[in-house]
Amino acid sequence: MANSQIPYKTYLSEEEIPKAWYNIRADMKTAHRPILNPGTLEPMSAEDLSPVFCSELAAQELNDTDRFIEIPDEVRELYKMYRPSPVMRAYALEKELGTPAKIYYKYEGGNTSGSHKLNSAIAQAYYAKKQGLKGVTTETGAGQWGTALAIACGFFELDCKVFMVKISSEQKPYRKAIMETYGATVTPSPSNTTNIGRKILEENPGTGGSLGCAISEAVEVAVSTEGYRYVLGSVLNQVLIHQSIIGLETKAALDRYDVYPDVLIGCAGGGSNFGGLMAPYMADRLAGKKSPYFIAVEPASCPSMTRGKFAYDFCDTGMVTPLAKMYTLGASFIPAPNHAGGLRYHGMSPILSQLYYDGYIDEARAVPQLSVFDAATLFARVEGILPAPESSHAIRVAIDEALACKESGESKTIVFGLTGTGNFDLGAYMQYADGTLNDYIPTDEDLEIGFAGIPKVE
Amino acid sequence: MANSQIPYKTYLSEEEIPKAWYNIRADMKTAHRPILNPGTLEPMSAEDLSPVFCSELAAQELNDTDRFIEIPDEVRELYKMYRPSPVMRAYALEKELGTPAKIYYKYEGGNTSGSHKLNSAIAQAYYAKKQGLKGVTTETGAGQWGTALAIACGFFELDCKVFMVKISSEQKPYRKAIMETYGATVTPSPSNTTNIGRKILEENPGTGGSLGCAISEAVEVAVSTEGYRYVLGSVLNQVLIHQSIIGLETKAALDRYDVYPDVLIGCAGGGSNFGGLMAPYMADRLAGKKSPYFIAVEPASCPSMTRGKFAYDFCDTGMVTPLAKMYTLGASFIPAPNHAGGLRYHGMSPILSQLYYDGYIDEARAVPQLSVFDAATLFARVEGILPAPESSHAIRVAIDEALACKESGESKTIVFGLTGTGNFDLGAYMQYADGTLNDYIPTDEDLEIGFAGIPKVE
Repeated sequence: MANSQIPYKTYLSEEEIPKAWYNIRADMKTAHRPILNPGTLEPMSAEDLSPVFCSELAAQELNDTDRFIEIPDEVRELYKMYRPSPVMRAYALEKELGTPAKIYYKYEGGNTSGSHKLNSAIAQAYYAKKQGLKGVTTETGAGQWGTALAIACGFFELDCKVFMVKISSEQKPYRKAIMETYGATVTPSPSNTTNIGRKILEENPGTGGSLGCAISEAVEVAVSTEGYRYVLGSVLNQVLIHQSIIGLETKAALDRYDVYPDVLIGCAGGGSNFGGLMAPYMADRLAGKKSPYFIAVEPASCPSMTRGKFAYDFCDTGMVTPLAKMYTLGASFIPAPNHAGGLRYHGMSPILSQLYYDGYIDEARAVPQLSVFDAATLFARVEGILPAPESSHAIRVAIDEALACKESGESKTIVFGLTGTGNFDLGAYMQYADGTLNDYIPTDEDLEIGFAGIPKVE
Repeated sequence: MANSQIPYKTYLSEEEIPKAWYNIRADMKTAHRPILNPGTLEPMSAEDLSPVFCSELAAQELNDTDRFIEIPDEVRELYKMYRPSPVMRAYALEKELGTPAKIYYKYEGGNTSGSHKLNSAIAQAYYAKKQGLKGVTTETGAGQWGTALAIACGFFELDCKVFMVKISSEQKPYRKAIMETYGATVTPSPSNTTNIGRKILEENPGTGGSLGCAISEAVEVAVSTEGYRYVLGSVLNQVLIHQSIIGLETKAALDRYDVYPDVLIGCAGGGSNFGGLMAPYMADRLAGKKSPYFIAVEPASCPSMTRGKFAYDFCDTGMVTPLAKMYTLGASFIPAPNHAGGLRYHGMSPILSQLYYDGYIDEARAVPQLSVFDAATLFARVEGILPAPESSHAIRVAIDEALACKESGESKTIVFGLTGTGNFDLGAYMQYADGTLNDYIPTDEDLEIGFAGIPKVE
C-alpha cells in the first residue's frame, strides 16, 4: 500500500513534548478587544476574574505579552501518559481517493476522554490544585469536556462538579457513568441545587435544560462555594494557550521530514482545537514567512464565522458571563434539534475571530451535516478510526481539498486535526444510517432572531 | 512523578513490527490432542475443516511444525495503521500502591475495535479475501469480536455477516451501530434467516438467544452459502498464532531496556490474549531458559482452568463444532446473569490447556468480579485509561502481586496485558457503581450440571 519513508504514525519521544505552551496573542498584529464586565461594560481585570477563575488561569486569560508560558512539570508528567499524540499519514485515504495530495492528521482521540479536551483539563485542574482549591465546577453538553475534566480531577484528587444538560444526561447515561467512574459528581441541569436552577424549574418544570442554564448553575456554585472555581473547555484564551501543544507537536513531527503544510484544516466550534493546531503555523504567517492556507470548518447549521456578526456578545446563552468581541450568531441561537454533528456554540474564540476578521485565517467554510457523515463513514472504513462528528467536519474539507488536487494534478500537503473519536456518538451514526438525519441550513430570517439579541456594545 | 530513563510509553517503529507470527506448537513438549469430528470422533484433517474455514486458516489450525509463519505484506501494512501498540510503564499505579515492584502493561485498546481482537480479524479477513471469498460469517456476544471483524472486512471490502446474541443487540445498540458503520450486516440471533434459527424461534418465540445459537446460525450460513466461510475470534490455534504479535512486540520493547518479567499476567477467556502475550516468554520456558512466573486470570464465576475438567468437549454451547481436549466447565455452562466481567467462555484454548496441564503455566487464578471492578476503577483514576472488565482481571492480579512485593520488599518486574478499553462496558461500570453487581461463585453442585454434559471421549 505505502512505499514511502514516512511512517503511518509519527510519535515524538516523551522528551520532545514541548516545555512551554505558545501564546499567539503576543504575536498578533491587532489585539482582540478586551472582555467586558456584563454589568459595567468595563474591561475585566485579573481581580475581576478571580472570583470565577483560578488566579493563574485569570492571568493567562489576560496575558498578551508572553510568547511562551512554561508547562509545569506536574502537567508535563501527566501529558506523558498519553502524549505526544501521533501525526498520522493517511495513506489509505489517499489511495481510496486516488489523489496526488499528501494527507496528514494529528490524532487527539487516543486517550480515554476521546478528544483533545484533556490537554486543557489537566492544566486547569493543576492550577486549581496548586491554588489549594477543593474543587471545580463546569457544564457539559454531550459530555466530552466533562469527561476530560473528570479524568484530570481524578489525577489531582480534586472534587469535580459537572452540570450536565438534563436531556443529554438522559440520552447519554454512559457519558454520565464514565465521569462518575473518575469520581465526578454529575448533576442533571436544571437542578434544585442552585437558585437559578430552582427558578427555571419553577417556571418550566418539564424542561430538558440547556447549556446556558448549565453554565449559570456551574458559575453560581463556583462563586458561592468556599474553595471552588469555574472552568471552561473552549473559547477562552487560556484554553487556546494549552491547546497550542497540538500544533507545536504537529510541527515538530512534520519538521522531521521537512514536510510543511500547504493547507491546514481544523473544525471550529468554540475554536480551541483549530486555535491550538494552527498556532505555530500562524506564527509563521504573522512573521511574514511562508505559511499554509488556513481553513476553519464549521457546521452549516451553526455558521458563526461564515454568517455571524463580528460583535460584542455574551459567551453563554444564559447571558451571565462577560462580553467578548467575536463572531456570533447571538447568545440565544440554538442549532436545529436535528443537528447531530456537534460544534453547536453560538460564538467563536475571540482570538480566532480577530485573526479571521484581519484576514490571517484565509477561509471559514460551512459544511452540511450529511456530507460530514459521508466523509466520516468513508474515513472510518479506510483509515480504521471512527471519527467524532466534530472532527469529521475537518475530514470533509480535507477530502474536498484532496479531490481538488486530483482534478488539478497538484500534490499539495494537507494537514488536518482529528480531534476525537466517535465512540460515544453512535446515536448520531445510527440516525445517519437509518436516514433520519437531514441537512438543515438556517434562513437569513432564522438568523435574524439570534442577531436581535446581540447587545449594542462597541 | 517519575524519574527513570524508561518512558511511560514505548513504541517500536513500524519497521520493527514482527515479520512472522510465532507458532508455539512447534516448541511444545506435549502436543495437545487433535480436534475431533463430532460425528465420527476421528481427528479432523484440513479437508474436513475447509468447508467451514478458509484453506490457509485450516492449515494454520493444524500446523504444529513451523515455528514461524510469515505475516503477509498486506496484513503487515494494515497492522502499521495501529501497531506496534505501546508497552506502558505504570509509574502512577506504582506510586499509588507504594510498591517497589515495576509494573508494565501492553496496551491493545488503542484502536477503534477497542481490543486485541483486530490482530486476528485482519489476518482472517485477509486469507478469506485471498481465497477469493465473498464474505465471512461469525457470531458475537458483547460485540468486541464482531466490531474487530467488521473493521477488518471493511479494509478488504469483504462482506461480513454477524449473528449477534439478540439480547445483546438490544442492550448494546451502539455495538450494532459501529459494526454497521463498517459495512457489516448484523442479525439478532435467533433469526428466521436460518433453519436452526427458525427451529429455535418456533420452540421458544420469546428467547433472547445465546452464543451457542449464534454460532450455529453463523456456521449454517457459512457452509450453505457459496463463497462464504466461518471465522472465530478466540480459542483456536490459528488465533493464538496471530495474537503472538502481542508478545513478540512486548518482548522486543522490553529487551531495549534489558527488562525481563519476573511475573507475566494475562486474563483468559478463550485464551487468545494470554496465549499471544506469553508466547515468546513461554518459548524461553520450553527451551529451559530463564522465564517468568506465568499467571492466567479468570473470573470466579466462570472458572474453567481452576475448577474445570481437562477433557474432550464441544467448543460451542450448541454442540455443532468439533471436539477439543481442553479445560472445560461443560458446553452447557453459562455464567450467572449477574456476571458483567466478560470472559464467559466455558472452555479454554487447547494450547493453553495443555501447557497448564503440563505445568508450564505456573498458575491459574480465579478472581471475583467486585474485586475486579475495584481494581479497574483504581487503575482508571491513576493511569487515565478506562480498562475493559476482561482486562481488569489481569489488573487485579497485577495489583495483588505488586502489593505482595510491598509486603516482602521485593522489586519484581510485573508485566500484564491490557487487552482493551471499557468504553462500551459502561453499563457494567454503572452496575458496579450503584451496588447492583455482586460476587457469584458457583457451588460444586452448580458445576456438576455442566460437567454432566461433557461427552465421554478419551
